[in-house]
Amino acid sequence: MYSFTNDYSEGAHPRILQAILEANLTQNKGYGLDAHSSHARELIREEIRPQDGDIHFIPGGTQTNLIVIASALRPYQAVISAVTGHVNVHETGAIEATGHKVLAMDTADGKLTPALVQQALDSHTDEHMVQPKMVYISNSTEVGTQYTKSELEALSRICRLKGLYLFMDGARIGSALTSPANDLTLADIAALTDVFYIGGTKNGALLGEAVVIVREELKADFRFMIKQRGAMMAKGWLLGIQFEELFQNNLFYDMARHANRMARRLREAIARQGWSFSSDSCTNQLFPIFSHQAVGELEKHFTFEIIGQTDDNHTCIRLVTSWATTEEGVEEFIRVLEKIS
Amino acid sequence: MYSFTNDYSEGAHPRILQAILEANLTQNKGYGLDAHSSHARELIREEIRPQDGDIHFIPGGTQTNLIVIASALRPYQAVISAVTGHVNVHETGAIEATGHKVLAMDTADGKLTPALVQQALDSHTDEHMVQPKMVYISNSTEVGTQYTKSELEALSRICRLKGLYLFMDGARIGSALTSPANDLTLADIAALTDVFYIGGTKNGALLGEAVVIVREELKADFRFMIKQRGAMMAKGWLLGIQFEELFQNNLFYDMARHANRMARRLREAIARQGWSFSSDSCTNQLFPIFSHQAVGELEKHFTFEIIGQTDDNHTCIRLVTSWATTEEGVEEFIRVLEKIS
Amino acid sequence: MYSFTNDYSEGAHPRILQAILEANLTQNKGYGLDAHSSHARELIREEIRPQDGDIHFIPGGTQTNLIVIASALRPYQAVISAVTGHVNVHETGAIEATGHKVLAMDTADGKLTPALVQQALDSHTDEHMVQPKMVYISNSTEVGTQYTKSELEALSRICRLKGLYLFMDGARIGSALTSPANDLTLADIAALTDVFYIGGTKNGALLGEAVVIVREELKADFRFMIKQRGAMMAKGWLLGIQFEELFQNNLFYDMARHANRMARRLREAIARQGWSFSSDSCTNQLFPIFSHQAVGELEKHFTFEIIGQTDDNHTCIRLVTSWATTEEGVEEFIRVLEKIS
Amino acid sequence: MYSFTNDYSEGAHPRILQAILEANLTQNKGYGLDAHSSHARELIREEIRPQDGDIHFIPGGTQTNLIVIASALRPYQAVISAVTGHVNVHETGAIEATGHKVLAMDTADGKLTPALVQQALDSHTDEHMVQPKMVYISNSTEVGTQYTKSELEALSRICRLKGLYLFMDGARIGSALTSPANDLTLADIAALTDVFYIGGTKNGALLGEAVVIVREELKADFRFMIKQRGAMMAKGWLLGIQFEELFQNNLFYDMARHANRMARRLREAIARQGWSFSSDSCTNQLFPIFSHQAVGELEKHFTFEIIGQTDDNHTCIRLVTSWATTEEGVEEFIRVLEKIS
Repeated sequence: MYSFTNDYSEGAHPRILQAILEANLTQNKGYGLDAHSSHARELIREEIRPQDGDIHFIPGGTQTNLIVIASALRPYQAVISAVTGHVNVHETGAIEATGHKVLAMDTADGKLTPALVQQALDSHTDEHMVQPKMVYISNSTEVGTQYTKSELEALSRICRLKGLYLFMDGARIGSALTSPANDLTLADIAALTDVFYIGGTKNGALLGEAVVIVREELKADFRFMIKQRGAMMAKGWLLGIQFEELFQNNLFYDMARHANRMARRLREAIARQGWSFSSDSCTNQLFPIFSHQAVGELEKHFTFEIIGQTDDNHTCIRLVTSWATTEEGVEEFIRVLEKIS
Repeated sequence: MYSFTNDYSEGAHPRILQAILEANLTQNKGYGLDAHSSHARELIREEIRPQDGDIHFIPGGTQTNLIVIASALRPYQAVISAVTGHVNVHETGAIEATGHKVLAMDTADGKLTPALVQQALDSHTDEHMVQPKMVYISNSTEVGTQYTKSELEALSRICRLKGLYLFMDGARIGSALTSPANDLTLADIAALTDVFYIGGTKNGALLGEAVVIVREELKADFRFMIKQRGAMMAKGWLLGIQFEELFQNNLFYDMARHANRMARRLREAIARQGWSFSSDSCTNQLFPIFSHQAVGELEKHFTFEIIGQTDDNHTCIRLVTSWATTEEGVEEFIRVLEKIS
Repeated sequence: MYSFTNDYSEGAHPRILQAILEANLTQNKGYGLDAHSSHARELIREEIRPQDGDIHFIPGGTQTNLIVIASALRPYQAVISAVTGHVNVHETGAIEATGHKVLAMDTADGKLTPALVQQALDSHTDEHMVQPKMVYISNSTEVGTQYTKSELEALSRICRLKGLYLFMDGARIGSALTSPANDLTLADIAALTDVFYIGGTKNGALLGEAVVIVREELKADFRFMIKQRGAMMAKGWLLGIQFEELFQNNLFYDMARHANRMARRLREAIARQGWSFSSDSCTNQLFPIFSHQAVGELEKHFTFEIIGQTDDNHTCIRLVTSWATTEEGVEEFIRVLEKIS
Repeated sequence: MYSFTNDYSEGAHPRILQAILEANLTQNKGYGLDAHSSHARELIREEIRPQDGDIHFIPGGTQTNLIVIASALRPYQAVISAVTGHVNVHETGAIEATGHKVLAMDTADGKLTPALVQQALDSHTDEHMVQPKMVYISNSTEVGTQYTKSELEALSRICRLKGLYLFMDGARIGSALTSPANDLTLADIAALTDVFYIGGTKNGALLGEAVVIVREELKADFRFMIKQRGAMMAKGWLLGIQFEELFQNNLFYDMARHANRMARRLREAIARQGWSFSSDSCTNQLFPIFSHQAVGELEKHFTFEIIGQTDDNHTCIRLVTSWATTEEGVEEFIRVLEKIS
């Protein structure tokens, strides 16, 4: 059964595997101190100019989130997140396990706003409460939405005004940056946030996220944090070489664009059949609302995640596309959908 | 320059890469719930019979250590380790970062004994001190030594008598199990410990360690722990498929045996030239003591780790071989050594 | 200016101070192993019969909460609390600092219900999320409300059914137990919860809370937890002797009853003047809503906490009475109020 | 039986209790924001001139240690301590529970030296190991010894040179400062350390330690740390008023001097009888070595702590005197000793 369950069902783009294969028997320095990692850092530095940043490669997203947050905060400080934020609901309390509270704010669309940040500040005023110190956002968000440049500028402004760090989880930043609704570049993001990461795992790498630390005071001793949390790979070149491939010849963007294109075809077909969506997404995650019966039919042919009932007759599901999603898979979905709608 | 710096300079055994390549475009369930991981678990279960165990795949060794220990201990409990234990000196306080003290015992040879365990218990007697609850050993150890069956039985006995968990770090278990001095099997280890892991990273996998939890009370909810510490890979099949290859057709043992063979050739040549060793190792790590001058010469041709001066004229170094160490590399080392000795 | 700011503005009941004075020069064993602490435990055991429990004295409430919760939960487990719960908002992330997420539920009146507990369970279903394992309630609550016996029975039932621990924060349990709305005894509470504490600090002791652990599996090694978190007083007899006094001759109940009586007089006077309350309290905390102007007048004569604006013209304040609140203070408040209403 | 078990067997100096009694019914602001605490801070500030410092009152010593250390260190940083240091052996892993490793150094006499600090630095050189960042010393130490001014200056020098914080645990600082071997003042200590505390509990207060933070960068948000760890007393004035008494009219020094005087009489008598000591102490803790038989006789008349056998025929014990130790108790001990020696 074809799967739209997530964007990490397959392995890596063949060019990435080929690069690993070719480098496999070369001896490399361990722990990310190898030439591939250095080159990959250079390539990413090119993307964020004129900003500069320290760049580290970390195997997975939850690890990245917990290391960045635990590194930035003092023990009594907290991170502000959307209720739907990955750190709030899908990491088994990873942030709390490092000692920090996640201040979860209700949002309309998975996105934080200056007003919500202000609201968190207003309700935390003295030493009997945690001290908000970081704002965590995801782009694209967990509900498929994304930040515009002006939205990110506004968030950046209030963060700087209030002395808060702004951290962007970019597990799906590729999809965000190549969406038709996007007006941001990595350079913009580097200019507007203090730290962010570029997700490899969900965009065609075997594994790996590239953290970019722009804010000076967040740079010190970051490798100690990586090591302490078990995220410093012995064979660190394996992460470096993948980001080398991703940022040579636009592979990173091409793969994300493909995922978005596949999602758009699904989205347009679903809308054409008169179904609605629980969130407005131009990225690679769609949240259509179908009748229970339609969901039942679709489940006979495809796998995907059930989000939950929206009313007595309807259910919201999640469809995710990726660099590896095939045109055949998408067409087959549309065909089945047309039959049952 | 040829490197004897560690056993993770190269990538993975070609058969492992080939398996990844072939499976690359197949859609898999995420988070270790795929068929490769299931099959790999079956293969490992075969190895530990008649014992049974829960088997989990985790990207790296430090992660594995911190997850196992944090999962087993209550907040005031501590783990007993050799001073030289990896958790004590080479993990940037990863165990302490989960809240637990490491009780470091001086040892003659990197190995814990019942007497040392008893000594730790004797000096921790009430609620003003931490409560020792787990014994951590490495096999082979950080100084290349290894446990015999009777040594492990004695440790197991005192642990059971005193209500301590026995945890074996098997980052280099392959080398231990195939060493000429070995009289243990994985089945023995499963019978004598409560939890242990089988190291892939240092024995020919790209990354990955297989935790085997034998003790019933340590099994519950272990996947929550893995996820919380950021060690649950989205593309978990990548770990599963590697252990599948490792435990099909004896690849795991063959690679370790090769590493040991290469080490033995070095060891014999070094001894022949009249040099001594700081520890007695039949595994893939050697700790020869050379004159400063000899070290200086060797450094012109090879890379390796300097352990430290042993007296005014001598320095101890570490030489590590692996599945990928070439005969040419070893012969060249012996040639250079003969010239300078 | 007379203060209604809290119930810990004054010291201790004179009988408590007298007891300390008399025992002052006697040599006592340290750390709560003295005769006063033993006797106090006996007195409390009498109160909770036929239940039995381990009883420990801890200097303060936040400490007690964090020790009980950290002792009961495994690293990935979470505690369910009302949004208004003390552990959620007024302890500077003390619970998170021990590694645990607080799952904060919106409530109508500061009280958790079986439906809210079920809702927390329903939204935490697998290892990608924390595992709810404990239910934290306060009695009386942070908004002055309290649990009836049938409400507590219902909570107890769902907790036992679902394998959750039920923990009652009794910082103001004296006020709850002596309120006109109360139908619970300490014995009921011991029968229906797994662990709770009896607050001394807010009911006439200099400092001190008495934790009662009823559930067998929560008892082990609790003194290790107390010591590790810095809550094991060298002069532990100082806590014991206070609880001895509190539970001899009903002093504990008498003081709480006085506080409630003072609160009732305020409440009735406020209602008489036509003002309303933000919550329905028969305990020693009142949350009246006054016009801004009335608040301004009251502030000229009394100190109290401002909760916040409820609409453009009104502000909610908090008035707290205690064992030490004087009739004169209350009458003066009523007099001022009558003048300005 | 008269007890020499510790210096916290009795309550508080009568003048302290009297002060509490007199202030008991006055309404005070909570959480250390009261007038007594302010005044006590002023009195301590006088003592440390010309240095300035932030002063906070904390109920107990373990709490103080864990709050100071957790506040100062980033997650991967460690504190250097003597093996015998209170944080290393007698706090149930309280420091590790905040995530930090204690680097325990063997010492001759319970005191750290620049050489030992350098040794800790030399063995922690990269991100695979914890980063030493703080030096923890006790004065007087856990074995009764104390730092001279020149020793403290030397430690201070290396700490400043290497960027380490110097933290003095002053649980028994009174005894140190009034010992015949002392040449330090509180002002010296404030000039040479970054943070230290003045112990009340072991010198005649009911409870309480006064932390003095001299180093600017350690001051920020310290009250958040106090609150988070449950150490912010509701009735904080209770701590303040005790330190007010302690530092009015020299009560603090007078009590410590009495304790030292009582210890000296014991010490001289013990030496006169030909017994030796395991450490050289002029403070209120003595560690005499007696024959097993002598210990057995003494145990019939007095309580004290057994440290351990020193050889087949001898046992080391600990005798502790305090502000409350009576001349009669001391004379009786000497009498018994003379009989059995």
